[in-house]
Amino acid sequence: MLKLQDQTDIKFLARAVQLARENVAIGGGPFGAVIVKDGEVVAESANQVIAIPDPTAHAEVQTIRLAAKNINSFNLSGTTLYTSCEPCPMCLGAIYWSRISRVVFASDRHDADLAGFRDDELYEAMTQAPEERKIHFEQVDVPEKGLEFTDWNNSHIKIDY
Amino acid sequence: MLKLQDQTDIKFLARAVQLARENVAIGGGPFGAVIVKDGEVVAESANQVIAIPDPTAHAEVQTIRLAAKNINSFNLSGTTLYTSCEPCPMCLGAIYWSRISRVVFASDRHDADLAGFRDDELYEAMTQAPEERKIHFEQVDVPEKGLEFTDWNNSHIKIDY
Repeated sequence: MLKLQDQTDIKFLARAVQLARENVAIGGGPFGAVIVKDGEVVAESANQVIAIPDPTAHAEVQTIRLAAKNINSFNLSGTTLYTSCEPCPMCLGAIYWSRISRVVFASDRHDADLAGFRDDELYEAMTQAPEERKIHFEQVDVPEKGLEFTDWNNSHIKIDY
Repeated sequence: MLKLQDQTDIKFLARAVQLARENVAIGGGPFGAVIVKDGEVVAESANQVIAIPDPTAHAEVQTIRLAAKNINSFNLSGTTLYTSCEPCPMCLGAIYWSRISRVVFASDRHDADLAGFRDDELYEAMTQAPEERKIHFEQVDVPEKGLEFTDWNNSHIKIDY
């Protein structure tokens, strides 16, 4: 007999996979996610990269956006994110910025790689210096460089992200 | 005398910093970005995390979304992204998924850290195994696990991301 927490996890994780499968059926990517707080769904979404089009519209990012809208805050602490697959680096970053408390996933980054997605390549890029990456990164100095941070530090209305 | 390419870079990078400074003046985060193709601006945005609210609405992500909308494609190859600060891991992931060709930035991740942003912490999280991270990550098996990838591989309408 599973514990209550495990049953809750399995229910919402199955829902995330269901969202992914429904999305494939309509031509979308095979990813789904659900954000839950105190046992209630705050937001859910599948991958919408092609439908919008928006390369950032992964299931996790879309669900975070919708959850933030629904609770009217960029701070999602206290929530759990259920996702059909281990988040890619973009989504992992979004999870940190949103302060989600817990992430539960089914398939992992290697499963995604086998299905043709580039998660492994992106994780590698995260550890490379900007000048070593496949995409050309370049730091250029301009006279205005850093003035925005000076403005920020002098601002009386800055908010802690 | 600067080369023409350098002058172009400096013009658009200065614009990215200007967007960041204008945003601070209205209570937003100190970040701005511009996407350029063949010398023309495709999209530009400042950080909109607080304004929306949306924790994923960094300047680079917002600019990528807008550029994808403006050219009606999730593939932004051939474009250059100018950003006031080195992208965080979330934005770096977004850049890879969008296939942007080149990234030019002014301030770097350490400058962002000094201004109170957690970029360094996020870069560290990218190299950690899910179970080692500050945010609790857990893989859970469900009977449906991976069926979405089977559906995807069997689909005749799948698109290469």
